[in-house]
Amino acid sequence: MTVDRALEYAKRNHDRHLAELKEFLAIPTISTLSEHSADMKRGAAWLEHHMKAIGLRNVKVISSAAGHPLVYGDWVGVESAPTVLLYGHYDVQPVDPLGEWISPPFEPAIRGDYIFARGAADMKTNAIAVLAAVEACLRADNLPVNLKVLFEGEEEGTIAVSGDYAIDDFVKSHHDELKCDVALSADATIAGKNSPALMYGSRGNINLKVWVRGPEVDLHSGEFGGAVHNPAHVLCELIAGMHDQDGRVTLPHFYDDVRSLSEEERSELAGDSPSDEEWKRLARVKQLYGEKGFTTAERIGARPTLEVITFVSGEGGQGVIPASAMARISMRLVPHQDYQRIQEGFMEYMRNHTPATVTWEAKGGGWDHPAVVGRDSIGMRAASAALQETFGVKPIFQLVGGTTPIMSLVKEELGVDVVSLGFTLPDDGMHAPNEKFYLPNFNRAIETYIRFFNKVTA
Amino acid sequence: MTVDRALEYAKRNHDRHLAELKEFLAIPTISTLSEHSADMKRGAAWLEHHMKAIGLRNVKVISSAAGHPLVYGDWVGVESAPTVLLYGHYDVQPVDPLGEWISPPFEPAIRGDYIFARGAADMKTNAIAVLAAVEACLRADNLPVNLKVLFEGEEEGTIAVSGDYAIDDFVKSHHDELKCDVALSADATIAGKNSPALMYGSRGNINLKVWVRGPEVDLHSGEFGGAVHNPAHVLCELIAGMHDQDGRVTLPHFYDDVRSLSEEERSELAGDSPSDEEWKRLARVKQLYGEKGFTTAERIGARPTLEVITFVSGEGGQGVIPASAMARISMRLVPHQDYQRIQEGFMEYMRNHTPATVTWEAKGGGWDHPAVVGRDSIGMRAASAALQETFGVKPIFQLVGGTTPIMSLVKEELGVDVVSLGFTLPDDGMHAPNEKFYLPNFNRAIETYIRFFNKVTA
Repeated sequence: MTVDRALEYAKRNHDRHLAELKEFLAIPTISTLSEHSADMKRGAAWLEHHMKAIGLRNVKVISSAAGHPLVYGDWVGVESAPTVLLYGHYDVQPVDPLGEWISPPFEPAIRGDYIFARGAADMKTNAIAVLAAVEACLRADNLPVNLKVLFEGEEEGTIAVSGDYAIDDFVKSHHDELKCDVALSADATIAGKNSPALMYGSRGNINLKVWVRGPEVDLHSGEFGGAVHNPAHVLCELIAGMHDQDGRVTLPHFYDDVRSLSEEERSELAGDSPSDEEWKRLARVKQLYGEKGFTTAERIGARPTLEVITFVSGEGGQGVIPASAMARISMRLVPHQDYQRIQEGFMEYMRNHTPATVTWEAKGGGWDHPAVVGRDSIGMRAASAALQETFGVKPIFQLVGGTTPIMSLVKEELGVDVVSLGFTLPDDGMHAPNEKFYLPNFNRAIETYIRFFNKVTA
Repeated sequence: MTVDRALEYAKRNHDRHLAELKEFLAIPTISTLSEHSADMKRGAAWLEHHMKAIGLRNVKVISSAAGHPLVYGDWVGVESAPTVLLYGHYDVQPVDPLGEWISPPFEPAIRGDYIFARGAADMKTNAIAVLAAVEACLRADNLPVNLKVLFEGEEEGTIAVSGDYAIDDFVKSHHDELKCDVALSADATIAGKNSPALMYGSRGNINLKVWVRGPEVDLHSGEFGGAVHNPAHVLCELIAGMHDQDGRVTLPHFYDDVRSLSEEERSELAGDSPSDEEWKRLARVKQLYGEKGFTTAERIGARPTLEVITFVSGEGGQGVIPASAMARISMRLVPHQDYQRIQEGFMEYMRNHTPATVTWEAKGGGWDHPAVVGRDSIGMRAASAALQETFGVKPIFQLVGGTTPIMSLVKEELGVDVVSLGFTLPDDGMHAPNEKFYLPNFNRAIETYIRFFNKVTA
């Protein structure tokens, strides 16, 4: 079966697809802020309408009691053909600091080769591209697989007090309905504008919030400075002690279960990864830093990390010793680290190192398993071939630093490896101000997805 | 001359004085927040009206181009009598965290023996008490001194971008008009409800703001965690390194100019100071902490300190490595430390210890000299005797940890030691939520000030 008709259809409809992308980006689907609950509903409704319009069947919004709705649709052409489960999310990150945006985050703006908007990189452009590919295949009578499409609205977080995600419940209780041969997540990145890539592993994570409390109330730093232990100092010391001189995390048992890289993997990673100069450019830093004895690609893809993502102490007036200090800590985990063991190690560190002059408390704030997928499955081979045909070069295989909860969920519940195929660039500013997407790859994304659907049967 | 008529007058007018205090406390004179500029003007106008009403002459509001106005008034009875310069401030600290207030900060509430409101302790009650004493002496024809009264509105800080304070300009350019024999500041504390105290030294301070900057923008902690140095970690390490294991500050030259306490001063401080149990109660901590080798009273009164008063990093979304981290640092200085040398030491520390993976910047945010006053001057003897007659016990002499900029200003510009006579208690929560004043000492304050004015001629 040739894909030319579908590719031709996509080309003819390019302007409309771009207009749809802009519409989708204009909805402020921020999942972690309750004041955007109505926008989340609007986002789900827009997607429902869009999925019906492109020809999917059984399209429905599946509401969630505490969190944000899922959107489902499917298309079953030939019962005997393989079934692809397609995953995406329609929620985005908050936009603070708003002042740093050049154009408003929910008014998509094209400047040069880029479209700027919150969600452009993560992951509304990939979502519209994969749905455009589905549309093109359906309209051109060119879809040789069965499709089940599932979008969630809580990938970036939820407002559900329980911290439970709607998608977890749904997948766990709908094994039959979601049965598939191949799973495809469009929430993914490539290595560079012309460098296709496929991820075969991603890090898990665990979020913790830790408080150090000293005096019951803020104290005048003149009146009491010299008499009490400042909780901001204590938390600084505790955090300073969480890494050693070599950039290694000092929490007990932190590295115990970390999978070692084979020499083969190390040399492959070395060949396929951006240079340190390129990493510096991507991260916009003058110098890189990390655990001694590992390359940048290894540190990001194959080594666990601990990062302070928030530190707040002393919001009162001048000359005040703060009563408490709080930090949010995000640890990225690699196979085969277990989040519970890591959390216990954190607690043990706090118990062993916090002085008796203060009290402390730490709470878990969610976790996800690390994931690895086989590189030789039908899905990975189809994705690899589709990328190569579209970009003209072989994709590189990556271990990425980010966390893709859907990979472990689908693997555990449905027994299927997830192929992550998406077109966001590493410097597109996911989660940051002026998030963007490189528009020439919007077309290539649609083309690659069309090819993928046609290769998965091979 | 007997003070009975004045004391009698004060007793008869107690309820009105309390009502005036409530009126004054209800004006939200927060000097550091520009949205309260109109309230600052209202506060100054209220004081102008009140000073006229109690019989002072030449009362005027002296406006400040960039900051908040001063209020001046005087009364010259006998040219040959000594002149007392009376100092106070009508501004207060901000009220955050507002949620911790039991009653609204600007709706004065009496519960038990206390009046609760922002400014009750620092220093509106002392202000109303000393003005009530002036009124009583004037109405009872019982004021044997000449008076010059000067209130400022920037003791807690200013909104002036230059950081210059109106009172500095005014005192520096009005030596003749402010000429005096004795200076009295009502911005002071006693040691306990029934324990009068006089301060003979107070610490200076220097405020610094320091930034550590890493990547140009916030980075996804999955994508980049392991590749870059987190500026929050770096600032934590820098701050952790500013104290050693013994609680000593490690900045170069920090202790070089610190005056050593004589054995006599040490034993006097030991006798006069609260016990550690009492300090714990006052500070509301389970354990005290500070520089090894010194008692709590010595650490607060005679040793310099370095405190982080604010630490902020990472206000963005989840899973984000912050682009920068900021801390505000307040150092309390003792005689004969020089703020410039201390600031240079801070810069030297930052230069020597900040890794090349980040950049840093530090800016001064104001400073005040430490101060010591002679304990045997006419003013100190008058204050001591007035306290002893009112409380029935001899006052203790204290080295306090707080900073009283007026002391060094008046000493340097007018050549006069400042007697600090005020009645706030150490646990009245200056600068904290639920700030209060112990009302039985409102009466004693008025009585002490009346006696002071009558003893200063002795």
